[in-house]
Amino acid sequence: MTAALTTAQLTEKHLPTLDQALDVIRTRAYWSPYPEHPKAYGPEGIAGSLDAAAGQAAFDALRGKRFELDQPGTDGWTATEVSPFGLELGVEYPHADIDVLLPALRAAMPAWRDAGPQARAAVCLEILARINARTHEFAHAVMHTSGQAFMMAFQAGGPHAQDRALEAVAYAYEAQTAAPASAQWVKPQGKRDPLEMNKQFTAVPRGIALLIGCNTFPTWNGFPGLFASLATGNAVLVKPHPRAVLPLALTVRIAREVLREAGFSPDLVALAAERDGEGIAKSLALRPEIRIIDYTGSTAFGDWLEENARQAQVFTEKAGVNTVVIHSTDDYKGMLSNLAFSLSLYSGQMCTTPQNLLIPREGIATDAGHKTYDEVVADLATAVDKLLGDDARANALLGAIVNDGVKSRLEAAAQLGEVALASRSVANPDFPGATVRTPVIVKLDGAKPDSEAVYRSECFGPVSFAVAVDSAADAVELLRGTVHDKGAMTVGAYTTAADVERLVEEACLEECAQLSLNLTGGVYLNQTAAFSDFHGSGGNPAANAALCDSAFVATRFRTVEVRRPA
Amino acid sequence: MTAALTTAQLTEKHLPTLDQALDVIRTRAYWSPYPEHPKAYGPEGIAGSLDAAAGQAAFDALRGKRFELDQPGTDGWTATEVSPFGLELGVEYPHADIDVLLPALRAAMPAWRDAGPQARAAVCLEILARINARTHEFAHAVMHTSGQAFMMAFQAGGPHAQDRALEAVAYAYEAQTAAPASAQWVKPQGKRDPLEMNKQFTAVPRGIALLIGCNTFPTWNGFPGLFASLATGNAVLVKPHPRAVLPLALTVRIAREVLREAGFSPDLVALAAERDGEGIAKSLALRPEIRIIDYTGSTAFGDWLEENARQAQVFTEKAGVNTVVIHSTDDYKGMLSNLAFSLSLYSGQMCTTPQNLLIPREGIATDAGHKTYDEVVADLATAVDKLLGDDARANALLGAIVNDGVKSRLEAAAQLGEVALASRSVANPDFPGATVRTPVIVKLDGAKPDSEAVYRSECFGPVSFAVAVDSAADAVELLRGTVHDKGAMTVGAYTTAADVERLVEEACLEECAQLSLNLTGGVYLNQTAAFSDFHGSGGNPAANAALCDSAFVATRFRTVEVRRPA
Repeated sequence: MTAALTTAQLTEKHLPTLDQALDVIRTRAYWSPYPEHPKAYGPEGIAGSLDAAAGQAAFDALRGKRFELDQPGTDGWTATEVSPFGLELGVEYPHADIDVLLPALRAAMPAWRDAGPQARAAVCLEILARINARTHEFAHAVMHTSGQAFMMAFQAGGPHAQDRALEAVAYAYEAQTAAPASAQWVKPQGKRDPLEMNKQFTAVPRGIALLIGCNTFPTWNGFPGLFASLATGNAVLVKPHPRAVLPLALTVRIAREVLREAGFSPDLVALAAERDGEGIAKSLALRPEIRIIDYTGSTAFGDWLEENARQAQVFTEKAGVNTVVIHSTDDYKGMLSNLAFSLSLYSGQMCTTPQNLLIPREGIATDAGHKTYDEVVADLATAVDKLLGDDARANALLGAIVNDGVKSRLEAAAQLGEVALASRSVANPDFPGATVRTPVIVKLDGAKPDSEAVYRSECFGPVSFAVAVDSAADAVELLRGTVHDKGAMTVGAYTTAADVERLVEEACLEECAQLSLNLTGGVYLNQTAAFSDFHGSGGNPAANAALCDSAFVATRFRTVEVRRPA
Repeated sequence: MTAALTTAQLTEKHLPTLDQALDVIRTRAYWSPYPEHPKAYGPEGIAGSLDAAAGQAAFDALRGKRFELDQPGTDGWTATEVSPFGLELGVEYPHADIDVLLPALRAAMPAWRDAGPQARAAVCLEILARINARTHEFAHAVMHTSGQAFMMAFQAGGPHAQDRALEAVAYAYEAQTAAPASAQWVKPQGKRDPLEMNKQFTAVPRGIALLIGCNTFPTWNGFPGLFASLATGNAVLVKPHPRAVLPLALTVRIAREVLREAGFSPDLVALAAERDGEGIAKSLALRPEIRIIDYTGSTAFGDWLEENARQAQVFTEKAGVNTVVIHSTDDYKGMLSNLAFSLSLYSGQMCTTPQNLLIPREGIATDAGHKTYDEVVADLATAVDKLLGDDARANALLGAIVNDGVKSRLEAAAQLGEVALASRSVANPDFPGATVRTPVIVKLDGAKPDSEAVYRSECFGPVSFAVAVDSAADAVELLRGTVHDKGAMTVGAYTTAADVERLVEEACLEECAQLSLNLTGGVYLNQTAAFSDFHGSGGNPAANAALCDSAFVATRFRTVEVRRPA
C-alpha cells in the first residue's frame, strides 16, 4: 500500500501541537488549538475549513441519503435518527455483520502497533484537524441529533470536543512513552564483568475497543475514549446511540480516510450502526474480542456493563445527583444569574447540570441583605424568567428537549412539590416541530421523608429542586450522603464563610467530587474546560473514570519488554 | 500529637533517592539504593543497620513469643507458621476484630491525604530505610516462611523487594504530581475581560487497601501493592499468608513506628493475621470499606477476587505456564547452564520459573554441532545434575519445598511421562527437618493429546516438561496458544535465526508476554530487576497488573479539583 501521507510528514505537521498539549496538561492553564468562534472557519480562516454556508450545505447534502462507508461486512442499511428540532434527516447507515467486521479490525492492529506512539498521535491529530475543518458541518449534525441549540452544538460538539480528544491523545502519548523504546542495563558485579542487557519496550494494544455513544453529547463524550483507544494502538468499533449516529459516522468516515492515506488499514475505526430496537450494545459488550469499552449514559446500563463485560476495561460516565450548597454570597445578583444560566443551558440535559439547590430554611446572608429561603427561590425563578424572557434568547440557550422521556419527567415534576417556577413552552420560528421548554423549579423540604425520595434520585432534564435545609452543616451532610450514594459529576457552593467552605471542601475530598465555589461570572458549574478541568472524578458512583487523567489511558495498552544479552 | 520527625526532615533526607528513582524509571537503566551484599550491613556499613550476627539475634529473639503490635481491636492471638526448614517458630500474632480495626484505618486517612504526595513519599522511604537496615533479620524471616535458601531470602526478600517498593513509590509520586497542586486559568474573551479561575488539585485516596500476601515471596510480591497504596494516601490492611506472617508483621510494625514518629496515625498500616483455616481473605475482600486489593497467589482465588470484589480495584498476580522455545544457539553450554540454574533456583517455586521447554523433535543447531531432541534433554539433565551435584551448593540454590502440595506434585510428576531427570532428596545439615528436592524433567510429545493436557496446565514447583515439537513454527503456535489460554509471567527463546526470533517476538507482542532471548550468562529468565524490567505484563491471564507501571498506581487515587473565580 502506498501512503499518500507519510507518518513523518504528519509528525512534522502536528508535533508542535502535541508538544503544547503535553505541556498544558501539566500546567492546566488555558489553551485550545481549535477556535470556538464560528467566523474562524472558512476561506479567510483555518486552511481548508468550511464556513457557515459551506457547513450547512455539506450537512444538507447528507440528508435523505445513504451514508456510504467502505467498511467490510455491510449486510444492510438502517436509519434511526429523529431530529429533536423536527427536521427530516433520513440518513441511512450501513449495518454491519459483526462476525465479518471484528476480524477486520483485529487484522488491522499489528501494523498500527508497530507504527509507535508518535506516529499514532500524529495520525490522530490529522483526523482531528480534518474534523475541526468541518466544525460547521458537525455543528448541524450534533444539533439535529442531540437537540442542542446551534451555538452550543458548534462549540461543545466542535472545538470543545476536539479539545477533549486531543487531551486524550496527549495523555495516551505520555503514558506510552513513560518507558523508553530501548534501554541498556549494566549491573556491576564487583571484580567480574558487569551483566549487560539490551532491552526493548513496546506499547501493545489491549484489543478492540468499543465506544458506546450517547444521545446528548455524541462527540464531546465520545471522542475521549475513541481517541484514547486509537492512540494506544487499539482498533475502535463505534456504536453510536441510534438517535445520534451522524456526528460519529462523520468521525468514522474521516478517521478511515486519514488512516488509509497514511498507509494504515482504514478498518482501525469502524461503525456499528444498529436497527431500531436491536440493542446491539449488550451483545457487542460481551464479545471476547472487545477488550475496552467506553460508555456514557444511564446508570442502569453503565452498571450492567461494569458487572458483565468482565473481559474488557470498562470506562463509564453514568448519572449523578449534582448539588449546590447555597449558604451566603457577596454577589447575590451574580449568583442568581450564574445559577439561572446553569439551569437553563441545553434545558438542563447535561450530566453536569445542578439538580439540588440546598438553601437554609432561615435564609442566607448576601451583599443585598438577608434573604429568606422563599426570597432566594423567588429571586432565582425571576432570574431564570428574565434570562429566558426573550424567545430568541430562550431558543439559543435551551435548544430542544431531546426525547419524550425528558418531556414526561418535566411534566411530572410539577406534582413533586410546590412549583416555584413553572415550565413554559417556547416557540421556535426556525423549527416549528421543536419541543422547547423552560426549566421548572420545585420547592422541597429536606427534612420530609417523601421529599427525600425525590431529591435523592436523579431527575434528568430541566428540573431542579430548591431544598430547604436546617443549616449549612445539614446541607453538607446531605451533600455528602447524596454523593456517596448516588454520585455527582459536579458540586457547587456559595459561601463567604471560611468554615463552611472548609466543610464543603472536606466533603468533596472525602466523597471524591469536583467542586466549583462561588461562581458568579461567566464560568458555569456545568462546563469544564479540557486540559485544565477534570470532568467527573472517577471516585464516586456517577462515573468510574475522569476526563482526562492517566487512569483513563493507562490500562488501554500494556508494555511488552524483549531483553537480550548485550 | 508532636512528631519526633518532621516530614520536612524526612523529605530533605529522602528526596535525592526519590529523584533518582524518578529518573531511573524513565531510563530503565541499572540502579538500586539498597546493597545486595550481606556485608554491606552492620556497623561498618549502612548506618544503623544490623550485621549478620545482629540480624540472626534479632530473628531469634522473635521466636516463641507474642509479636506485640499496638493496633486497635486485638481480640486474641494466633500462630500459624511452619518453617519449611523445620525450625520451630512459635510466633504469636494479634488477631483483629475487623469491625474495630477498619474504622481506625479509615479515620487515619484525612491527615495522610492532606500531607500531600511528597511527604507521603518521604515517609514511605523512611519506612524502607528502616526495613533495609534490618535486612539480615528479614532474611531469616523470609527464609523460614517461604523456604527460600538464605542468600535468596536475603537478596530477593531484602534489597530486591525494597527496590520494588521504592519503584512503586516513585510511580505513585509521579502519577499524583502529574496535575499541579494549583493552576491559574485565564481564558481570553475578545474585547471583554478574560475569564479567570484559580484551581486546586488534590490527590485523594480511594479508601482502605487490602494486601493479601503470598507464601513464597511475602515481601517481594507484597511490598509493591502496600507501598503503592500507602504512597497514594490510602490506609493499608495487611493480610499475610498464614504460613508467611513474620516478614509482613515486621513490615507493619516498622511502618507504624515511622508513621507515629512522623506525626501520623500508625493505624494507616495494620495487620490482619488469621487463625488456621479461618480464611478471612474472602470476607475482607468483600467489605465495602476495602477499595483496593493486591493479591499474589493461585489463579482460582485471583479469579474469584476479580469476579467478586467489585467494589475494589483488584490487582492480581496469578499463575501461568512459562515457556521456553529452544530452536538453536551459538552457546550451547551457556544455554544449558543458564536453563539448569533457572530450573533449580528455589526449587522452581517461582511464578517466573520456566515450565515448558519446547524442542524440535529433529533437534537443534548449536555451536557444538547438531543436537537431537534426546541429546538436548539429556545434556540439560546433566547440567542440572552437575549444578546440584554438591550438596552444599544444592542447598544454597534449592532452599526447601514450601508445602506438601508442591511435594505431592513433584512426586506425581514422574508418572506424567518419560523421566529425563529424576528428582532426588538432598540432606540439609543445618536444618535436618527441611524437605529439599532437586527438579524433575519429564519428556512429553507435544502432538499427543494426553501430553497436551499435562503441559498446558501449570504444575507449580520443581517440575519441567521437555516437549518435543514439529518445528520452530509449531513451537511458536504452541507458545501463543498457551499464553493466550493460561498466561505466562515469562517467556524465553533460544535461536540464532532472525526469522524465528521475529516469530517469537510477534507472538509475545500479540499475546502480551515478557520475552527473554538467548540468556546464556548471569541473567536468568526468572529474575526481573526493579526500575528496569517489568514483572508480568498485565495483558495475559497470568496477571492483570505489571510491576511496575503507571497502570499499577493510576487508579489507587483520584484527583479532586476545587475551582474559584480569581
